[in-house]
Amino acid sequence: MKKIETVKEFDGWLSRYVHTSEYCHCEMTFSIYLPPQAETQAVPVLYWLSGLTCTDDNFRVKAGAQRYAAKHGIALVIPDTSPRGDDVSDVPDRYNLGKGAGFYIDAIQPPWNKNYKMYSYITKELPKLIEKNFLVNAQKSISGHSMGGHGALICALKNPKMYQSVSAFSPVCHPSECAWGKEVFQKYLGNDKSEWAEYDTYHLIEKMTHAIPVLIEQGTNDEFLDEQLMTKELQYLCKKNKYPLDLRMRVGYDHSYHFIATFIGDHIRYHSDILKSTN
Amino acid sequence: MKKIETVKEFDGWLSRYVHTSEYCHCEMTFSIYLPPQAETQAVPVLYWLSGLTCTDDNFRVKAGAQRYAAKHGIALVIPDTSPRGDDVSDVPDRYNLGKGAGFYIDAIQPPWNKNYKMYSYITKELPKLIEKNFLVNAQKSISGHSMGGHGALICALKNPKMYQSVSAFSPVCHPSECAWGKEVFQKYLGNDKSEWAEYDTYHLIEKMTHAIPVLIEQGTNDEFLDEQLMTKELQYLCKKNKYPLDLRMRVGYDHSYHFIATFIGDHIRYHSDILKSTN
Repeated sequence: MKKIETVKEFDGWLSRYVHTSEYCHCEMTFSIYLPPQAETQAVPVLYWLSGLTCTDDNFRVKAGAQRYAAKHGIALVIPDTSPRGDDVSDVPDRYNLGKGAGFYIDAIQPPWNKNYKMYSYITKELPKLIEKNFLVNAQKSISGHSMGGHGALICALKNPKMYQSVSAFSPVCHPSECAWGKEVFQKYLGNDKSEWAEYDTYHLIEKMTHAIPVLIEQGTNDEFLDEQLMTKELQYLCKKNKYPLDLRMRVGYDHSYHFIATFIGDHIRYHSDILKSTN
Repeated sequence: MKKIETVKEFDGWLSRYVHTSEYCHCEMTFSIYLPPQAETQAVPVLYWLSGLTCTDDNFRVKAGAQRYAAKHGIALVIPDTSPRGDDVSDVPDRYNLGKGAGFYIDAIQPPWNKNYKMYSYITKELPKLIEKNFLVNAQKSISGHSMGGHGALICALKNPKMYQSVSAFSPVCHPSECAWGKEVFQKYLGNDKSEWAEYDTYHLIEKMTHAIPVLIEQGTNDEFLDEQLMTKELQYLCKKNKYPLDLRMRVGYDHSYHFIATFIGDHIRYHSDILKSTN
Protein backbone atom coordinates (compact mmCIF):
# COMPACT_ATOMS: atom_id res chain seq x y z
CA MET A 1 0.00 0.00 0.00
CA LYS A 2 1.40 3.35 -1.03
CA LYS A 3 0.26 6.87 -0.12
CA ILE A 4 0.15 9.04 -3.24
CA GLU A 5 -1.45 12.23 -1.90
CA THR A 6 -2.40 13.86 1.37
CA VAL A 7 -4.09 17.16 2.18
CA LYS A 8 -5.25 18.77 5.41
CA GLU A 9 -8.98 19.43 5.76
CA PHE A 10 -11.07 20.31 8.81
CA ASP A 11 -8.03 19.66 10.99
CA GLY A 12 -7.82 16.03 9.77
CA TRP A 13 -6.10 14.46 6.76
CA LEU A 14 -7.54 13.39 3.45
CA SER A 15 -5.23 10.92 1.71
CA ARG A 16 -5.18 8.73 -1.35
CA TYR A 17 -3.58 5.28 -1.50
CA VAL A 18 -2.90 2.67 -4.15
CA HIS A 19 -2.53 -1.05 -3.44
CA THR A 20 -2.61 -4.32 -5.33
CA SER A 21 -5.96 -6.03 -4.84
CA GLU A 22 -5.99 -9.79 -4.37
CA TYR A 23 -9.62 -10.00 -5.49
CA CYS A 24 -9.56 -7.56 -8.41
CA HIS A 25 -6.07 -8.55 -9.58
CA CYS A 26 -5.08 -4.99 -10.37
CA GLU A 27 -3.90 -1.84 -8.68
CA MET A 28 -6.78 -0.18 -6.81
CA THR A 29 -7.05 3.38 -5.52
CA PHE A 30 -8.98 4.58 -2.49
CA SER A 31 -9.23 7.78 -0.46
CA ILE A 32 -9.46 7.95 3.30
CA TYR A 33 -10.31 10.89 5.50
CA LEU A 34 -9.00 10.58 9.04
CA PRO A 35 -10.66 13.08 11.39
CA PRO A 36 -8.53 14.88 13.99
CA GLN A 37 -9.76 12.43 16.67
CA ALA A 38 -7.91 9.60 14.85
CA GLU A 39 -4.58 11.05 15.97
CA THR A 40 -5.17 9.78 19.50
CA GLN A 41 -7.93 7.15 19.39
CA ALA A 42 -9.33 4.45 17.12
CA VAL A 43 -12.36 5.83 15.29
CA PRO A 44 -15.23 4.04 13.49
CA VAL A 45 -15.40 4.04 9.69
CA LEU A 46 -18.08 5.06 7.22
CA TYR A 47 -17.56 3.42 3.81
CA TRP A 48 -18.88 5.45 0.90
CA LEU A 49 -19.64 3.78 -2.45
CA SER A 50 -19.90 6.11 -5.44
CA GLY A 51 -22.06 5.95 -8.54
CA LEU A 52 -21.54 5.21 -12.24
CA THR A 53 -18.54 6.95 -13.90
CA CYS A 54 -17.11 8.06 -10.53
CA THR A 55 -13.72 7.39 -8.99
CA ASP A 56 -12.76 8.01 -5.36
CA ASP A 57 -12.44 11.69 -6.28
CA ASN A 58 -16.06 12.78 -6.72
CA PHE A 59 -17.31 12.28 -3.17
CA ARG A 60 -14.24 13.70 -1.47
CA VAL A 61 -14.43 16.88 -3.54
CA LYS A 62 -18.17 17.46 -3.96
CA ALA A 63 -20.12 16.14 -0.98
CA GLY A 64 -18.80 18.27 1.87
CA ALA A 65 -18.73 15.17 4.07
CA GLN A 66 -15.35 15.77 5.70
CA ARG A 67 -16.81 18.60 7.78
CA TYR A 68 -19.23 16.19 9.46
CA ALA A 69 -16.72 13.36 9.69
CA ALA A 70 -14.43 15.72 11.62
CA LYS A 71 -17.30 16.87 13.83
CA HIS A 72 -18.40 13.34 14.75
CA GLY A 73 -14.97 11.69 14.76
CA ILE A 74 -15.63 9.21 11.97
CA ALA A 75 -13.19 8.11 9.27
CA LEU A 76 -14.42 8.09 5.67
CA VAL A 77 -13.19 5.40 3.28
CA ILE A 78 -13.96 6.07 -0.38
CA PRO A 79 -13.06 3.25 -2.79
CA ASP A 80 -13.06 3.38 -6.57
CA THR A 81 -16.12 2.10 -8.47
CA SER A 82 -14.44 -0.68 -10.47
CA PRO A 83 -11.13 -2.37 -11.19
CA ARG A 84 -8.79 -0.23 -13.31
CA GLY A 85 -5.83 -0.57 -15.63
CA ASP A 86 -4.97 -1.38 -19.24
CA ASP A 87 -5.50 -5.12 -18.69
CA VAL A 88 -9.00 -4.73 -17.25
CA SER A 89 -11.96 -5.48 -19.57
CA ASP A 90 -14.01 -2.47 -20.56
CA VAL A 91 -16.57 -1.14 -23.04
CA PRO A 92 -15.29 2.43 -23.42
CA ASP A 93 -18.44 3.82 -25.01
CA ARG A 94 -20.77 2.46 -22.28
CA TYR A 95 -20.92 4.31 -18.98
CA ASN A 96 -22.92 1.58 -17.24
CA LEU A 97 -20.62 -1.31 -18.13
CA GLY A 98 -16.96 -2.03 -17.39
CA LYS A 99 -14.70 0.57 -15.83
CA GLY A 100 -16.52 2.95 -13.52
CA ALA A 101 -19.42 0.48 -13.36
CA GLY A 102 -18.36 -2.40 -11.11
CA PHE A 103 -21.84 -2.46 -9.54
CA TYR A 104 -20.28 -3.86 -6.34
CA ILE A 105 -20.88 -7.46 -7.43
CA ASP A 106 -18.58 -10.45 -8.03
CA ALA A 107 -18.70 -11.23 -11.77
CA ILE A 108 -18.77 -14.90 -12.72
CA GLN A 109 -18.85 -14.62 -16.50
CA PRO A 110 -15.75 -14.16 -18.67
CA PRO A 111 -14.06 -11.83 -19.38
CA TRP A 112 -15.48 -9.89 -16.41
CA ASN A 113 -14.77 -12.54 -13.78
CA LYS A 114 -11.03 -11.92 -14.02
CA ASN A 115 -11.12 -8.50 -12.32
CA TYR A 116 -14.69 -7.48 -11.49
CA LYS A 117 -14.90 -8.71 -7.89
CA MET A 118 -16.00 -5.47 -6.26
CA TYR A 119 -18.34 -7.17 -3.77
CA SER A 120 -15.52 -9.16 -2.21
CA TYR A 121 -13.18 -6.20 -2.47
CA ILE A 122 -15.56 -3.95 -0.53
CA THR A 123 -16.75 -6.45 2.09
CA LYS A 124 -13.63 -8.56 2.62
CA GLU A 125 -10.40 -7.07 1.37
CA LEU A 126 -10.77 -3.35 1.97
CA PRO A 127 -11.98 -3.41 5.61
CA LYS A 128 -9.10 -5.75 6.49
CA LEU A 129 -6.62 -3.42 4.83
CA ILE A 130 -8.09 -0.35 6.54
CA GLU A 131 -8.23 -1.92 9.98
CA LYS A 132 -4.65 -3.14 9.67
CA ASN A 133 -3.15 0.16 8.53
CA PHE A 134 -5.04 3.00 10.20
CA LEU A 135 -6.09 3.96 13.71
CA VAL A 136 -9.68 2.78 13.29
CA ASN A 137 -11.79 0.29 15.22
CA ALA A 138 -13.97 -2.51 13.83
CA GLN A 139 -17.18 -0.45 13.99
CA LYS A 140 -18.34 0.35 10.49
CA SER A 141 -21.26 1.74 8.54
CA ILE A 142 -21.84 2.01 4.83
CA SER A 143 -23.54 4.47 2.48
CA GLY A 144 -23.41 5.45 -1.17
CA HIS A 145 -25.07 7.11 -4.13
CA SER A 146 -26.99 5.67 -7.09
CA MET A 147 -25.05 2.54 -8.18
CA GLY A 148 -23.15 3.04 -4.90
CA GLY A 149 -26.42 3.32 -2.98
CA HIS A 150 -27.30 -0.09 -4.41
CA GLY A 151 -23.81 -1.25 -3.40
CA ALA A 152 -24.18 -0.04 0.17
CA LEU A 153 -27.58 -1.67 0.53
CA ILE A 154 -26.55 -5.08 -0.81
CA CYS A 155 -23.32 -5.14 1.21
CA ALA A 156 -25.25 -4.45 4.43
CA LEU A 157 -28.23 -6.69 3.66
CA LYS A 158 -25.94 -9.61 2.81
CA ASN A 159 -23.80 -8.99 5.93
CA PRO A 160 -26.26 -7.77 8.53
CA LYS A 161 -23.80 -8.19 11.41
CA MET A 162 -20.84 -6.61 9.70
CA TYR A 163 -22.14 -3.03 9.39
CA GLN A 164 -23.70 -1.15 12.29
CA SER A 165 -25.88 0.89 9.94
CA VAL A 166 -26.62 1.52 6.27
CA SER A 167 -28.03 4.40 4.27
CA ALA A 168 -28.26 5.32 0.61
CA PHE A 169 -28.80 8.35 -1.60
CA SER A 170 -30.85 7.76 -4.76
CA PRO A 171 -30.02 4.03 -4.85
CA VAL A 172 -30.70 1.63 -7.71
CA CYS A 173 -33.23 -0.40 -5.71
CA HIS A 174 -34.09 -3.19 -8.12
CA PRO A 175 -31.26 -3.66 -10.65
CA SER A 176 -32.65 -6.93 -12.02
CA GLU A 177 -35.54 -4.98 -13.49
CA CYS A 178 -34.04 -1.68 -14.69
CA ALA A 179 -32.09 -1.04 -17.91
CA TRP A 180 -28.79 -0.15 -16.17
CA GLY A 181 -28.87 -3.29 -14.05
CA LYS A 182 -30.29 -5.81 -16.51
CA GLU A 183 -27.52 -5.24 -19.05
CA VAL A 184 -24.69 -5.36 -16.57
CA PHE A 185 -26.08 -8.32 -14.58
CA GLN A 186 -26.47 -10.32 -17.79
CA LYS A 187 -22.87 -9.58 -18.77
CA TYR A 188 -21.29 -10.06 -15.33
CA LEU A 189 -23.52 -12.88 -14.01
CA GLY A 190 -25.03 -14.65 -17.02
CA ASN A 191 -28.66 -15.53 -17.66
CA ASP A 192 -29.56 -17.28 -14.40
CA LYS A 193 -31.74 -14.76 -12.59
CA SER A 194 -31.23 -16.48 -9.24
CA GLU A 195 -27.66 -15.15 -9.43
CA TRP A 196 -29.00 -11.65 -10.07
CA ALA A 197 -31.29 -11.80 -7.04
CA GLU A 198 -28.24 -12.17 -4.79
CA TYR A 199 -27.25 -8.60 -5.65
CA ASP A 200 -30.66 -6.97 -5.81
CA THR A 201 -31.93 -4.95 -2.83
CA TYR A 202 -35.55 -5.67 -3.68
CA HIS A 203 -35.01 -9.42 -3.70
CA LEU A 204 -32.71 -9.39 -0.66
CA ILE A 205 -35.29 -7.52 1.40
CA GLU A 206 -37.98 -9.88 0.12
CA LYS A 207 -36.24 -12.81 1.81
CA MET A 208 -34.72 -11.11 4.90
CA THR A 209 -35.65 -12.96 8.05
CA HIS A 210 -33.95 -10.55 10.48
CA ALA A 211 -34.56 -7.02 9.27
CA ILE A 212 -31.93 -4.30 9.51
CA PRO A 213 -33.18 -0.70 9.28
CA VAL A 214 -32.66 0.99 5.89
CA LEU A 215 -32.45 4.76 5.42
CA ILE A 216 -32.93 6.08 1.88
CA GLU A 217 -32.72 9.72 0.77
CA GLN A 218 -34.37 10.40 -2.59
CA GLY A 219 -35.10 13.55 -4.62
CA THR A 220 -38.48 13.81 -6.32
CA ASN A 221 -36.96 15.55 -9.38
CA ASP A 222 -34.39 12.79 -9.94
CA GLU A 223 -34.38 12.08 -13.67
CA PHE A 224 -33.64 8.38 -13.05
CA LEU A 225 -36.26 7.83 -10.36
CA ASP A 226 -38.91 5.83 -12.19
CA GLU A 227 -36.94 3.97 -14.83
CA GLN A 228 -33.61 3.14 -13.17
CA LEU A 229 -34.00 3.48 -9.41
CA MET A 230 -37.45 1.89 -8.99
CA THR A 231 -37.79 3.29 -5.49
CA LYS A 232 -41.57 2.98 -5.50
CA GLU A 233 -41.37 -0.76 -6.04
CA LEU A 234 -39.09 -1.10 -3.01
CA GLN A 235 -41.33 1.18 -0.96
CA TYR A 236 -44.35 -0.96 -1.85
CA LEU A 237 -42.55 -4.18 -0.90
CA CYS A 238 -41.38 -2.77 2.43
CA LYS A 239 -44.86 -1.56 3.25
CA LYS A 240 -46.33 -4.96 2.39
CA ASN A 241 -43.68 -6.83 4.42
CA LYS A 242 -43.59 -4.29 7.27
CA TYR A 243 -39.88 -3.85 6.59
CA PRO A 244 -38.23 -0.92 8.49
CA LEU A 245 -37.53 1.45 5.58
CA ASP A 246 -37.09 5.16 6.30
CA LEU A 247 -37.58 6.63 2.82
CA ARG A 248 -37.16 10.40 2.79
CA MET A 249 -38.60 11.84 -0.42
CA ARG A 250 -37.18 15.35 -0.88
CA VAL A 251 -39.31 17.64 -3.01
CA GLY A 252 -37.50 19.33 -5.90
CA TYR A 253 -34.10 17.67 -5.45
CA ASP A 254 -32.34 15.90 -8.32
CA HIS A 255 -29.74 13.13 -8.69
CA SER A 256 -26.64 15.36 -8.30
CA TYR A 257 -24.00 15.92 -5.65
CA HIS A 258 -25.84 19.12 -4.70
CA PHE A 259 -28.55 16.83 -3.35
CA ILE A 260 -25.98 14.70 -1.51
CA ALA A 261 -24.28 17.81 -0.08
CA THR A 262 -27.62 19.01 1.28
CA PHE A 263 -28.34 15.86 3.29
CA ILE A 264 -24.94 14.20 3.92
CA GLY A 265 -24.78 15.89 7.33
CA ASP A 266 -28.01 14.15 8.37
CA HIS A 267 -26.64 10.79 7.27
CA ILE A 268 -23.31 11.11 9.01
CA ARG A 269 -25.08 12.11 12.21
CA TYR A 270 -27.42 9.10 11.77
CA HIS A 271 -24.48 6.71 11.41
CA SER A 272 -22.55 8.41 14.20
CA ASP A 273 -25.44 8.00 16.65
CA ILE A 274 -25.65 4.27 15.92
CA LEU A 275 -21.88 3.72 15.87
CA LYS A 276 -21.54 5.44 19.23
CA SER A 277 -24.45 3.58 20.83
CA THR A 278 -23.10 0.18 19.71
CA ASN A 279 -19.46 0.84 20.55
CA MET B 1 -29.83 36.95 -19.82
CA LYS B 2 -30.75 33.30 -20.11
CA LYS B 3 -30.96 30.61 -17.42
CA ILE B 4 -29.22 27.45 -18.62
CA GLU B 5 -29.32 25.30 -15.48
CA THR B 6 -30.90 25.20 -12.03
CA VAL B 7 -30.61 22.76 -9.16
CA LYS B 8 -32.01 22.70 -5.64
CA GLU B 9 -29.49 22.79 -2.79
CA PHE B 10 -29.97 23.49 0.92
CA ASP B 11 -33.56 24.47 0.21
CA GLY B 12 -32.41 27.26 -2.14
CA TRP B 13 -31.60 27.29 -5.85
CA LEU B 14 -28.24 27.19 -7.58
CA SER B 15 -28.55 28.44 -11.17
CA ARG B 16 -26.32 29.24 -14.11
CA TYR B 17 -26.93 32.09 -16.53
CA VAL B 18 -25.39 33.35 -19.76
CA HIS B 19 -25.58 36.95 -20.95
CA THR B 20 -23.84 39.24 -23.42
CA SER B 21 -21.35 41.45 -21.63
CA GLU B 22 -21.08 45.06 -22.74
CA TYR B 23 -17.58 45.38 -21.28
CA CYS B 24 -16.12 42.01 -22.34
CA HIS B 25 -17.88 41.95 -25.72
CA CYS B 26 -18.67 38.27 -25.51
CA GLU B 27 -21.11 35.87 -23.89
CA MET B 28 -20.33 35.50 -20.19
CA THR B 29 -21.47 32.79 -17.77
CA PHE B 30 -22.10 33.13 -14.05
CA SER B 31 -23.66 31.05 -11.30
CA ILE B 32 -25.89 32.37 -8.56
CA TYR B 33 -27.07 30.66 -5.41
CA LEU B 34 -30.26 32.11 -3.99
CA PRO B 35 -30.86 30.99 -0.40
CA PRO B 36 -34.39 30.05 0.71
CA GLN B 37 -34.77 33.48 2.33
CA ALA B 38 -34.63 35.08 -1.15
CA GLU B 39 -38.08 33.71 -1.94
CA THR B 40 -39.67 36.31 0.29
CA GLN B 41 -37.13 39.07 0.96
CA ALA B 42 -34.22 40.87 -0.71
CA VAL B 43 -30.97 39.35 0.51
CA PRO B 44 -27.38 40.70 0.43
CA VAL B 45 -24.85 39.26 -2.02
CA LEU B 46 -21.40 37.77 -1.59
CA TYR B 47 -19.40 37.89 -4.84
CA TRP B 48 -16.83 35.10 -5.18
CA LEU B 49 -13.91 35.44 -7.59
CA SER B 50 -12.15 32.20 -8.53
CA GLY B 51 -8.52 31.46 -9.32
CA LEU B 52 -6.46 30.64 -12.41
CA THR B 53 -7.95 27.99 -14.75
CA CYS B 54 -11.33 28.06 -12.96
CA THR B 55 -14.79 28.77 -14.34
CA ASP B 56 -17.90 29.46 -12.27
CA ASP B 57 -18.11 25.71 -11.68
CA ASN B 58 -15.25 25.08 -9.25
CA PHE B 59 -16.46 27.07 -6.27
CA ARG B 60 -20.09 25.99 -6.53
CA VAL B 61 -19.08 22.33 -6.57
CA LYS B 62 -16.07 22.19 -4.25
CA ALA B 63 -16.28 24.82 -1.52
CA GLY B 64 -19.40 23.77 0.36
CA ALA B 65 -20.39 27.45 0.61
CA GLN B 66 -24.07 27.03 -0.20
CA ARG B 67 -24.69 25.47 3.20
CA TYR B 68 -23.57 28.67 4.94
CA ALA B 69 -25.21 30.97 2.41
CA ALA B 70 -28.51 29.22 3.17
CA LYS B 71 -27.90 29.44 6.90
CA HIS B 72 -27.13 33.18 6.85
CA GLY B 73 -29.51 34.19 4.06
CA ILE B 74 -26.87 35.47 1.64
CA ALA B 75 -26.85 35.07 -2.14
CA LEU B 76 -23.64 33.89 -3.78
CA VAL B 77 -22.67 35.23 -7.19
CA ILE B 78 -19.86 33.32 -8.91
CA PRO B 79 -18.60 34.83 -12.18
CA ASP B 80 -16.24 33.26 -14.67
CA THR B 81 -12.51 34.15 -14.51
CA SER B 82 -12.12 35.67 -17.99
CA PRO B 83 -13.93 36.45 -21.22
CA ARG B 84 -14.69 33.35 -23.30
CA GLY B 85 -15.41 32.32 -26.86
CA ASP B 86 -13.65 31.55 -30.14
CA ASP B 87 -13.07 35.23 -30.87
CA VAL B 88 -11.36 35.97 -27.54
CA SER B 89 -7.54 36.18 -27.51
CA ASP B 90 -5.78 33.36 -25.72
CA VAL B 91 -2.47 31.57 -25.25
CA PRO B 92 -3.72 27.99 -24.95
CA ASP B 93 -0.54 26.55 -23.48
CA ARG B 94 -0.28 29.17 -20.70
CA TYR B 95 -2.53 28.76 -17.68
CA ASN B 96 -1.73 32.23 -16.30
CA LEU B 97 -2.49 34.19 -19.45
CA GLY B 98 -5.62 34.58 -21.56
CA LYS B 99 -8.73 32.49 -20.95
CA GLY B 100 -9.14 31.48 -17.32
CA ALA B 101 -6.68 34.21 -16.33
CA GLY B 102 -8.47 37.55 -16.61
CA PHE B 103 -6.83 38.73 -13.35
CA TYR B 104 -9.82 41.00 -12.73
CA ILE B 105 -8.17 43.95 -14.46
CA ASP B 106 -9.08 46.10 -17.49
CA ALA B 107 -6.52 45.39 -20.21
CA ILE B 108 -5.33 48.39 -22.22
CA GLN B 109 -2.90 46.68 -24.61
CA PRO B 110 -3.96 44.98 -27.85
CA PRO B 111 -5.14 42.35 -28.52
CA TRP B 112 -6.23 41.91 -24.85
CA ASN B 113 -8.04 45.25 -24.56
CA LYS B 114 -10.83 44.05 -26.86
CA ASN B 115 -12.33 41.60 -24.33
CA TYR B 116 -10.31 41.51 -21.12
CA LYS B 117 -12.23 44.04 -19.05
CA MET B 118 -12.89 41.89 -16.01
CA TYR B 119 -12.45 44.72 -13.51
CA SER B 120 -15.28 46.73 -15.02
CA TYR B 121 -17.33 43.60 -15.55
CA ILE B 122 -17.08 42.64 -11.86
CA THR B 123 -17.46 46.08 -10.30
CA LYS B 124 -19.87 47.76 -12.73
CA GLU B 125 -21.75 45.46 -15.06
CA LEU B 126 -22.41 42.35 -12.99
CA PRO B 127 -23.78 43.99 -9.81
CA LYS B 128 -26.19 46.04 -11.92
CA LEU B 129 -27.37 42.91 -13.72
CA ILE B 130 -27.77 40.99 -10.46
CA GLU B 131 -29.61 43.76 -8.66
CA LYS B 132 -31.97 44.22 -11.60
CA ASN B 133 -32.87 40.56 -12.05
CA PHE B 134 -32.90 38.91 -8.64
CA LEU B 135 -34.46 39.52 -5.24
CA VAL B 136 -31.28 40.96 -3.70
CA ASN B 137 -30.54 44.28 -2.02
CA ALA B 138 -27.60 46.62 -2.66
CA GLN B 139 -25.55 45.27 0.28
CA LYS B 140 -22.58 43.36 -1.04
CA SER B 141 -19.32 41.77 0.03
CA ILE B 142 -16.57 40.17 -1.99
CA SER B 143 -14.16 37.29 -1.55
CA GLY B 144 -12.08 34.96 -3.69
CA HIS B 145 -9.19 32.55 -3.99
CA SER B 146 -5.64 33.01 -5.31
CA MET B 147 -5.96 35.16 -8.48
CA GLY B 148 -9.56 35.68 -7.29
CA GLY B 149 -8.34 36.66 -3.82
CA HIS B 150 -6.26 39.33 -5.55
CA GLY B 151 -9.39 40.27 -7.53
CA ALA B 152 -11.55 40.60 -4.42
CA LEU B 153 -8.95 42.73 -2.65
CA ILE B 154 -8.38 45.17 -5.52
CA CYS B 155 -12.11 45.53 -6.23
CA ALA B 156 -12.76 46.40 -2.58
CA LEU B 157 -9.69 48.61 -2.08
CA LYS B 158 -10.49 50.59 -5.22
CA ASN B 159 -14.18 50.91 -4.25
CA PRO B 160 -14.14 51.18 -0.47
CA LYS B 161 -17.76 52.30 -0.25
CA MET B 162 -19.16 49.76 -2.66
CA TYR B 163 -18.49 46.59 -0.67
CA GLN B 164 -19.42 46.21 2.98
CA SER B 165 -16.56 43.76 3.56
CA VAL B 166 -13.77 41.89 1.81
CA SER B 167 -11.86 38.69 2.47
CA ALA B 168 -9.49 36.48 0.52
CA PHE B 169 -8.13 32.94 0.54
CA SER B 170 -4.48 32.56 -0.50
CA PRO B 171 -4.51 35.80 -2.52
CA VAL B 172 -1.85 36.99 -4.94
CA CYS B 173 -0.88 39.98 -2.78
CA HIS B 174 1.70 41.72 -4.93
CA PRO B 175 1.22 40.75 -8.60
CA SER B 176 3.63 43.44 -9.90
CA GLU B 177 6.47 41.49 -8.32
CA CYS B 178 5.60 37.79 -8.79
CA ALA B 179 6.06 35.70 -11.95
CA TRP B 180 2.32 35.07 -12.51
CA GLY B 181 1.50 38.77 -12.25
CA LYS B 182 4.50 40.31 -13.98
CA GLU B 183 3.93 38.40 -17.21
CA VAL B 184 0.22 39.08 -17.38
CA PHE B 185 0.44 42.73 -16.31
CA GLN B 186 3.07 43.38 -18.99
CA LYS B 187 0.85 41.79 -21.65
CA TYR B 188 -2.47 43.33 -20.52
CA LEU B 189 -1.20 46.73 -19.31
CA GLY B 190 2.11 47.41 -21.05
CA ASN B 191 5.39 48.49 -19.52
CA ASP B 192 4.26 51.47 -17.43
CA LYS B 193 4.42 50.21 -13.86
CA SER B 194 2.16 52.96 -12.60
CA GLU B 195 -0.62 51.19 -14.48
CA TRP B 196 0.31 47.95 -12.71
CA ALA B 197 0.14 49.57 -9.29
CA GLU B 198 -3.55 50.34 -9.84
CA TYR B 199 -4.28 46.60 -9.68
CA ASP B 200 -1.81 45.55 -6.99
CA THR B 201 -3.03 45.04 -3.41
CA TYR B 202 0.37 45.90 -1.97
CA HIS B 203 0.50 49.23 -3.77
CA LEU B 204 -3.17 50.03 -3.19
CA ILE B 205 -2.78 49.50 0.56
CA GLU B 206 0.41 51.55 0.50
CA LYS B 207 -1.55 54.61 -0.58
CA MET B 208 -4.91 54.03 1.17
CA THR B 209 -5.92 57.08 3.18
CA HIS B 210 -9.10 55.57 4.63
CA ALA B 211 -8.37 51.98 5.57
CA ILE B 212 -10.94 49.22 5.11
CA PRO B 213 -10.38 46.02 7.15
CA VAL B 214 -8.88 43.12 5.19
CA LEU B 215 -9.28 39.45 6.20
CA ILE B 216 -6.86 36.96 4.62
CA GLU B 217 -6.85 33.17 5.15
CA GLN B 218 -3.57 31.51 4.20
CA GLY B 219 -2.20 27.96 4.51
CA THR B 220 1.41 27.56 5.61
CA ASN B 221 1.92 24.57 3.26
CA ASP B 222 0.73 26.50 0.21
CA GLU B 223 3.18 25.70 -2.60
CA PHE B 224 2.78 29.20 -4.06
CA LEU B 225 3.15 31.12 -0.81
CA ASP B 226 6.62 32.62 -1.13
CA GLU B 227 7.06 33.03 -4.87
CA GLN B 228 3.61 33.93 -6.18
CA LEU B 229 1.46 35.13 -3.29
CA MET B 230 4.06 37.24 -1.43
CA THR B 231 1.89 37.35 1.68
CA LYS B 232 4.83 38.20 3.95
CA GLU B 233 5.56 41.37 2.01
CA LEU B 234 1.98 42.52 2.48
CA GLN B 235 2.03 41.55 6.15
CA TYR B 236 5.21 43.59 6.65
CA LEU B 237 3.71 46.62 4.90
CA CYS B 238 0.49 46.46 6.95
CA LYS B 239 2.45 46.18 10.16
CA LYS B 240 4.60 49.16 9.20
CA ASN B 241 1.60 51.27 8.17
CA LYS B 242 -0.65 50.01 11.01
CA TYR B 243 -3.11 48.83 8.36
CA PRO B 244 -6.00 46.65 9.71
CA LEU B 245 -5.03 43.28 8.23
CA ASP B 246 -6.38 40.11 9.87
CA LEU B 247 -4.00 37.51 8.41
CA ARG B 248 -4.85 33.99 9.57
CA MET B 249 -1.95 31.65 8.90
CA ARG B 250 -3.25 28.05 9.03
CA VAL B 251 -0.62 25.46 9.83
CA GLY B 252 -0.43 22.54 7.40
CA TYR B 253 -3.04 23.74 4.92
CA ASP B 254 -2.30 23.98 1.19
CA HIS B 255 -3.65 25.99 -1.77
CA SER B 256 -6.57 23.65 -2.62
CA TYR B 257 -10.32 23.79 -2.30
CA HIS B 258 -10.01 21.50 0.73
CA PHE B 259 -8.47 24.51 2.48
CA ILE B 260 -11.28 26.77 1.26
CA ALA B 261 -13.92 24.25 2.36
CA THR B 262 -12.43 24.17 5.85
CA PHE B 263 -12.69 27.93 6.43
CA ILE B 264 -15.42 29.18 4.06
CA GLY B 265 -17.95 28.92 6.89
CA ASP B 266 -15.92 31.38 8.98
CA HIS B 267 -15.75 33.81 6.07
CA ILE B 268 -19.44 33.71 5.25
CA ARG B 269 -20.26 34.29 8.91
CA TYR B 270 -17.77 37.21 8.93
CA HIS B 271 -19.42 38.81 5.91
CA SER B 272 -22.90 38.06 7.22
CA ASP B 273 -22.21 39.80 10.54
CA ILE B 274 -21.03 42.95 8.75
CA LEU B 275 -23.78 42.87 6.12
CA LYS B 276 -26.44 42.56 8.81
CA SER B 277 -24.96 45.27 11.01
CA THR B 278 -24.81 47.75 8.11
CA ASN B 279 -28.20 46.94 6.61
